[in-house]
Amino acid sequence: MDDKVNLPEKLALLDGAYQPGIVGFLNDYMLAVVKAHGEFVWHRHDDTDDFFLVLSGRLTIQLRDRDVELGPGELFVVPRGVEHCPKADEETHVLLIEPKGTPNTGDAGGELTAPERTI
Amino acid sequence: MDDKVNLPEKLALLDGAYQPGIVGFLNDYMLAVVKAHGEFVWHRHDDTDDFFLVLSGRLTIQLRDRDVELGPGELFVVPRGVEHCPKADEETHVLLIEPKGTPNTGDAGGELTAPERTI
Repeated sequence: MDDKVNLPEKLALLDGAYQPGIVGFLNDYMLAVVKAHGEFVWHRHDDTDDFFLVLSGRLTIQLRDRDVELGPGELFVVPRGVEHCPKADEETHVLLIEPKGTPNTGDAGGELTAPERTI
Repeated sequence: MDDKVNLPEKLALLDGAYQPGIVGFLNDYMLAVVKAHGEFVWHRHDDTDDFFLVLSGRLTIQLRDRDVELGPGELFVVPRGVEHCPKADEETHVLLIEPKGTPNTGDAGGELTAPERTI
């Protein structure tokens, strides 16, 4: 990564919800931004924890036994193997960090599975 | 990590500058907040990249050939092996991500070396 990353500017490049854009790397981890809006899909990652930091808006990370409600400046790490389903009633901007090669839909697959693309 | 982390609330628990507090983990990485104020120390990490995200204030990451100026919502990853020295003219709040066991002062050591402590 040669230069700094302005997260709002990167988010402005994104179109649809739940289509992440990679903005940098930390060793073998991807740093990505995503617009969350509506409900994603229930899934889990068996091999990695899953990092969410809300930059603007409000994100609900639904777990099977409770909901985690995140506002700006709040982060949550979903432990590996734990089923979760993000949802947002308004357009919400999120920083994601996951190892390279982690599919956004985890074990679930399906039409919301997004390619790894750098923006 | 059982619950969400509110970064401003965690930052309010910190006293001095450049004394990071760990707020969570992502696999074998530490998520830490720190107040930057004044100049840190020139150092490098030979085994890892170094993640900085400014939450409030302004941070200058001095490199040997240029300065990287970060405001709120801006991040920079210092590549492994690259000497750097953060400085901030005002109190600046930063999210740091590094592998567990990474000393904050890298190869430099000295009195600014901080213990790993969870807040």
